[in-house]
Amino acid sequence: MKYVYYFGAGKAEGNGQMKEILGGKGAGLAEMTRIGLPVPAGFTISTETCDYYLKHGRKYPKELAAQVKANLARLEKTTGKKLGDAKDPLLVSVRSGSARSMPGMMETILNLGLNSRSVEGLAKITGNERFAYDAFRRFVQMYSSVVIGLPKDELEVKLRDLKSRFKVKDDTQVPAEGWRDLVEEYKKYFRSKTGKDFPEDPQEQLWGAIGAVFESWMGEKAVTYRRVEKITGLLGTAVNVVQMVFGNRGENSGTGVCFTRDPSTGEKVFFGDFLIDAQGEDVVAGIRTPMHLSEMAKRMPKVYKQLEGVRQKLEHHYRDMQDLEFTVEDGKLYMLQTRTGKRSPAATFQVAMAMVNEGLISREEALQRIQPEDVERLFYPVIAPTATRDELTKRKIATGVNAVPGAAAGKAVFTAHEAEEWALRGEKVILVRRETSPEDVGGMNAAQGILTATGGKTSHAAVVARGWGKCCIVGCEALDIDYAKKQMHVNGRLIHQGDFLTIDGNEGFVYEGEIPLARPEAPKAYSVVLGWADKIRRLGVRTNADTPVDARRAREMGAEGIGLCRTEHMFFKDFEQPEKSIERQLAIQEMIVADDREARQRALDKLLPFQRRDFIGIFEAMNGLPVTIRLIDPPLHEFVPHERAKQEELAKKIGIPVETVIRRVEQLHESNPMLGHRGCRLCITYPEILEMQVRAIIEAAIECQKRGIKVFPEIMHPLVMDRKELKILEVETRRVADALIAKHKVKLNYLVGTMIELPRAALLADQIAEVAEFFSFGTNDLTQTTMGLSRDDAGRFLPEYVDEKKAGIFAADPFQTLDQSGVGMLIEWAIARGRETRPKLKVGICGEHGGDAPSVKFCHKVGMNYVSASPFRVPISRLAAAQAVIEEKAAKKDGKRGAR
Amino acid sequence: MKYVYYFGAGKAEGNGQMKEILGGKGAGLAEMTRIGLPVPAGFTISTETCDYYLKHGRKYPKELAAQVKANLARLEKTTGKKLGDAKDPLLVSVRSGSARSMPGMMETILNLGLNSRSVEGLAKITGNERFAYDAFRRFVQMYSSVVIGLPKDELEVKLRDLKSRFKVKDDTQVPAEGWRDLVEEYKKYFRSKTGKDFPEDPQEQLWGAIGAVFESWMGEKAVTYRRVEKITGLLGTAVNVVQMVFGNRGENSGTGVCFTRDPSTGEKVFFGDFLIDAQGEDVVAGIRTPMHLSEMAKRMPKVYKQLEGVRQKLEHHYRDMQDLEFTVEDGKLYMLQTRTGKRSPAATFQVAMAMVNEGLISREEALQRIQPEDVERLFYPVIAPTATRDELTKRKIATGVNAVPGAAAGKAVFTAHEAEEWALRGEKVILVRRETSPEDVGGMNAAQGILTATGGKTSHAAVVARGWGKCCIVGCEALDIDYAKKQMHVNGRLIHQGDFLTIDGNEGFVYEGEIPLARPEAPKAYSVVLGWADKIRRLGVRTNADTPVDARRAREMGAEGIGLCRTEHMFFKDFEQPEKSIERQLAIQEMIVADDREARQRALDKLLPFQRRDFIGIFEAMNGLPVTIRLIDPPLHEFVPHERAKQEELAKKIGIPVETVIRRVEQLHESNPMLGHRGCRLCITYPEILEMQVRAIIEAAIECQKRGIKVFPEIMHPLVMDRKELKILEVETRRVADALIAKHKVKLNYLVGTMIELPRAALLADQIAEVAEFFSFGTNDLTQTTMGLSRDDAGRFLPEYVDEKKAGIFAADPFQTLDQSGVGMLIEWAIARGRETRPKLKVGICGEHGGDAPSVKFCHKVGMNYVSASPFRVPISRLAAAQAVIEEKAAKKDGKRGAR
Repeated sequence: MKYVYYFGAGKAEGNGQMKEILGGKGAGLAEMTRIGLPVPAGFTISTETCDYYLKHGRKYPKELAAQVKANLARLEKTTGKKLGDAKDPLLVSVRSGSARSMPGMMETILNLGLNSRSVEGLAKITGNERFAYDAFRRFVQMYSSVVIGLPKDELEVKLRDLKSRFKVKDDTQVPAEGWRDLVEEYKKYFRSKTGKDFPEDPQEQLWGAIGAVFESWMGEKAVTYRRVEKITGLLGTAVNVVQMVFGNRGENSGTGVCFTRDPSTGEKVFFGDFLIDAQGEDVVAGIRTPMHLSEMAKRMPKVYKQLEGVRQKLEHHYRDMQDLEFTVEDGKLYMLQTRTGKRSPAATFQVAMAMVNEGLISREEALQRIQPEDVERLFYPVIAPTATRDELTKRKIATGVNAVPGAAAGKAVFTAHEAEEWALRGEKVILVRRETSPEDVGGMNAAQGILTATGGKTSHAAVVARGWGKCCIVGCEALDIDYAKKQMHVNGRLIHQGDFLTIDGNEGFVYEGEIPLARPEAPKAYSVVLGWADKIRRLGVRTNADTPVDARRAREMGAEGIGLCRTEHMFFKDFEQPEKSIERQLAIQEMIVADDREARQRALDKLLPFQRRDFIGIFEAMNGLPVTIRLIDPPLHEFVPHERAKQEELAKKIGIPVETVIRRVEQLHESNPMLGHRGCRLCITYPEILEMQVRAIIEAAIECQKRGIKVFPEIMHPLVMDRKELKILEVETRRVADALIAKHKVKLNYLVGTMIELPRAALLADQIAEVAEFFSFGTNDLTQTTMGLSRDDAGRFLPEYVDEKKAGIFAADPFQTLDQSGVGMLIEWAIARGRETRPKLKVGICGEHGGDAPSVKFCHKVGMNYVSASPFRVPISRLAAAQAVIEEKAAKKDGKRGAR
Repeated sequence: MKYVYYFGAGKAEGNGQMKEILGGKGAGLAEMTRIGLPVPAGFTISTETCDYYLKHGRKYPKELAAQVKANLARLEKTTGKKLGDAKDPLLVSVRSGSARSMPGMMETILNLGLNSRSVEGLAKITGNERFAYDAFRRFVQMYSSVVIGLPKDELEVKLRDLKSRFKVKDDTQVPAEGWRDLVEEYKKYFRSKTGKDFPEDPQEQLWGAIGAVFESWMGEKAVTYRRVEKITGLLGTAVNVVQMVFGNRGENSGTGVCFTRDPSTGEKVFFGDFLIDAQGEDVVAGIRTPMHLSEMAKRMPKVYKQLEGVRQKLEHHYRDMQDLEFTVEDGKLYMLQTRTGKRSPAATFQVAMAMVNEGLISREEALQRIQPEDVERLFYPVIAPTATRDELTKRKIATGVNAVPGAAAGKAVFTAHEAEEWALRGEKVILVRRETSPEDVGGMNAAQGILTATGGKTSHAAVVARGWGKCCIVGCEALDIDYAKKQMHVNGRLIHQGDFLTIDGNEGFVYEGEIPLARPEAPKAYSVVLGWADKIRRLGVRTNADTPVDARRAREMGAEGIGLCRTEHMFFKDFEQPEKSIERQLAIQEMIVADDREARQRALDKLLPFQRRDFIGIFEAMNGLPVTIRLIDPPLHEFVPHERAKQEELAKKIGIPVETVIRRVEQLHESNPMLGHRGCRLCITYPEILEMQVRAIIEAAIECQKRGIKVFPEIMHPLVMDRKELKILEVETRRVADALIAKHKVKLNYLVGTMIELPRAALLADQIAEVAEFFSFGTNDLTQTTMGLSRDDAGRFLPEYVDEKKAGIFAADPFQTLDQSGVGMLIEWAIARGRETRPKLKVGICGEHGGDAPSVKFCHKVGMNYVSASPFRVPISRLAAAQAVIEEKAAKKDGKRGAR
């Protein structure tokens, strides 16, 4: 078994494709060596070694020692130096490097090979004692903290003490003797803490460093990072042992970091920083201000030209923008790293488009390079770049779950009602709640951003806010809200209603006061690239939209229809005439507290014109495109007031005793409302609700059609679990609709279908398809029921299920990314059975997953006709749908290749 | 198409097998005619006609009129009389008759064919004017109310007025002229109400009667009866048109009802009543006291001997106990009906056993004749037969849902806590609650019976009570309980705590005061017959039992092990030392409010000895049999106090601030606890709970084994949804168990398995079986999640789903009888997939369905190893498991026959 891969002198055992085994850095070094770039020699211990090490109780494979020895000998031969040599010692860096970039998450040891003898050799051969001892003290410091685990702080204190002893401020001012003293002090400290001497033997040093790098793979930082970034399936980290080169050997030396294009804009300019007489860590420390590459071009024209050549070569070689690290040692350029450059969302699109235009990559490749997050982040407001780090640090008062990206600033308001009031009079507000419910949607809509103390990324607040692309932070547990006093305590600070807050949904940070925001504009490249996606994809992309405004916005985002129009939001809020919202609320509440069918009917009669007007607006906005309308879904208790004062108000307004209201509200309480009297069950028990809603839909459609608007209404029944149940609803739906169509003497096509959101419906899909003309998978509820997981309550334990360091049962939150093995099995089954009954059955998805890229790809794979996503996620779905086609093609090719 | 079947003069077109088409009565009349018994002639209009009539907008098939006409002609020929004839008129009865007995639910018209002319003929030919006019007024009265729908009351008033005019008390004292007057009055009333004359034309009378009988099939009474009795799949009612014979033609006439054996005891004696000079309705009216058959034997020895012959013939012919109706007209015996006799549970077993012993039927046939309800009712206490109807009527204050049969009397108590206290000091109590929760189990156990204002047959109260065979009424909406005042209003009456109540769970009736009860003893025949069942069945029958007492009781009932031991009840109640219950409760509450692992561990250490002692008791009771123990399942909030006073008490007792308790209780609140932090999710987040429980189980097992008790513990993890999740739990379980086994140096076999109660677990059963050594289907939760139905909330709409007259979507409540098409599909899938992975996978069921006969048969069919039922339902499951084998054999035979 080969565990170690050598590179040096123009040859390499590894190559750039071997990221999984060599890590990104190792693969890059090997590849750069192969293509003739100047790279210091070294070798990479594979990620498989790390995997073995972790799986075998921290033991190395037995072949490893011999392989490291042989490669070290080769390195010494290539460099003509020996590790630990007293005259001209070889120094090496020992660095981590995994297949996916995890910047700063794992460990590095530099200048390894120095000891009390070799440091003298280094001093002599470089003629620079100060440099040699500086290098040595850096090594001792790093080794002590990283390998041995001595507290960094205490080591730092000793450095600070030294500097005050020498009365200097910067490290650069410390003389050679100072570093020599510090080394001695470190060694003494090392002895006192470990009972052993600092290792003089370079072999011991080397193995200590290798072990520390492997260990750092399971360090808390690294594990958390992988969880957050959803990095899974890696073997571990590689270890790169590379000859040290020094950028701090004087004015003819230096170190730099650069991008082959501008990572913010994507512009094709060479972009980077260079620091003369410095080592990599000095650049990172940010104490000295580096120069721009253009200045370097003037200061070191020859090296710069060589670097520019490297830039060209690497971009053509890798066919992507690269992020480079290099060092100049005494006028000689060394490339230390190349990797795909991280870039801003805007740059992602720009680079992709430009490289297609330059003929570097194909459109398919361009599309494959765009990540869902790139699309998402493109549109959200951000904290303006003018805000200083200091100011932000000072003002930050809490951190929550970054549910919806973007930033927002406004006055804190603690009730939805007041949020609406304040917004009406022109104030910008942030709605702050313990949690939100459908009653709050008006206020949520009126607010700039939403902040809740509880909930996760799929809580009511998060889901609704995501639909609107509205910045939202949830689960901010530090908020201690006192609704009565209209204030909250946050980590010792007191925020009153009306105080300004700024929230940053990208990070989940909450700031006191108003911080200026900036809103990025979508670059031209975005439209171009998504246009390519539309040409490639087969899956339709619709949107979840409940109002004309949302519908228009979604259409701008590229939606080809509405896949889910939730009619219940209309019961709370008149989005066109907000002052009429109260009328709607009263009517729906009156309907609910009604004691008999007649009273219910009277209330419904009041709601009819409102719903009809809303549907007209939506049909207008979606002229020519299909609109799927879901009849009432949530349990009725979500619509009624739960506070005494509001109950009294309601009783008074509709003229019944308050006791009746209270009794009815109590009756509506359910132990598990998610599994209770909701969805189509409401229309089974109260068919008059169905009648009103179907009437509103069909009357609106007829009116629009008369005005020349093309309407394609699709009426959808939620929470169906049985063929007979759906049949009852379908018959009633057609009875109402057909009577209106006959009365108005028009021809109007409409469909009647169902959501598939309960396991039983999926299991019996063949029967249900006898009645349903279309299926729309409600994967939020289907996930809840299939897994027995309440989305609202899962916050208590689901994080542990997704946390690799704890139980690590799921790779991703199943409410964000579809559980393909369980829920997905039901979906595949239902589509297959449904189409056995009705071959042309139209199938879509309208859960949150319709806007999640991996889930969209699954939907493509199982043969759905369309996905439906919230407006701001429509572009993500368009992109993912295209990527699904590209990946399918690639898989087929691979399959064919494999078959040959 | 043949719609009408003739019988008469020893020949019949139908026969006894044709119940589905002729109804029970029609088939019986045809069969009796065929085997030569004296039966009046007539014809039966088939149930298919009714089906046609109801499906075609109340229209008859066009062939019907001709067929009725032809058969009427044949009847006139057989009898030598003509319908409506002025001299010697033929009179007929028109009676309903469906395939399954629905006593009193449908309509009957007697003496049809009388009109103003034929009544005179009847008077002359019988020489009895009074008789003729009595018959006529009966006919007019019945026809007016049944066919025309005139109010019965008003017709009765006229009869009463007549009697007071004639100053007589009994109908028998009214002279001929009285009846003549009454007929006239009825006719006048008929005219005034309908605007038409009473129909003179016998044809018109006949068709009116036929239509009325068909209509009565859809009458509210009949529909409700079928729903309650779960009678489905029938075509409708037949109509029997039969020559009238009269038992009221004098001292040589009479009418009687009899059973071929004693329907109460099953004893082989001729059992029945006879009334001289009377018609059937007189017997039913109960005004005159009938004589016992033995007296008839003296009064009419010849006829009695003939009747005794009929009895023998029919029992041998039908091979079952028969219920007969007969009339003697002028010394001539006519058989009017024979049907399988309804009998008491005790008689059911006695007759079945006796008939096997007599060689009349096989053991298999005997078993097929026992219904689950027969077993169930055998054991429950009943209102003592000494209680008078008057007393019961006077004392009845409310009606609820009859959740668990039996009766109980005790003092009303409104909290579980007080129920325990009162019971401890020797009081009998009825626990009255709005609803119950696991916190209440102690009080529920202490009470004689349970009465709740909310919930259905599968609510917490019902399920727990059923487990104990404890009388329980739920959903008694009339209860208006005031916990604070310790009283309730019930339909205008005020019941204080301590007032006596008697509840009858057979009927769902609630009585004020104490009514004496009686407890039936199981007859010898019961053990004999169930012994036969045990020999035949292949399915194992275990029990759900949480305490040694339950375990012993279940074993007496024939349980072959425990299929579900719920460990959480042990946290509330020390069933052996009730005074120690509080210690347990405190320990579990302390565990829950603990802020860190150490505090939690301390609390768990207190619980360990309690759980160990309970397990020892259960292992002792189940010596030699397997015991499946489920680790903690319910959400933690069910264990903590929700009232301020109790919270303070808890805080004080465990020495933490009450705010901490309150905060923790609030934190535990969940929107949908059913889908929340419960089941194995608790042990994933708090592995120390698993450790304590496994330790208690294994230590108890080791101790018992050392004492020579044979233990077979099976440790079961609830609510599993993923292989990896179960793997984590399994590894931890074995780690704890194996360490103890090693430490004690014993050999102990135990299994680790899982419940399958989430769709995802069923879908991925192949993976889960890699880890699980057994599956136990938790069909309560599996039904909840598969159908998206909360058992606690479904009461709001599920009744409508099951109500044939409303939506009628399901044939039965899916929480009582397994939904075979949906949930059943998952079960079949999971068993098949699970056994692909692990061919010897042990599979059982431990939901409520394990004690429901149709569900048990399903479990047999899909190849489970055992079912587990609550102790009192164990015999039902034993019986059903045997019936499943018998039915399987029969189906195979049919299959073979079909294949030939």
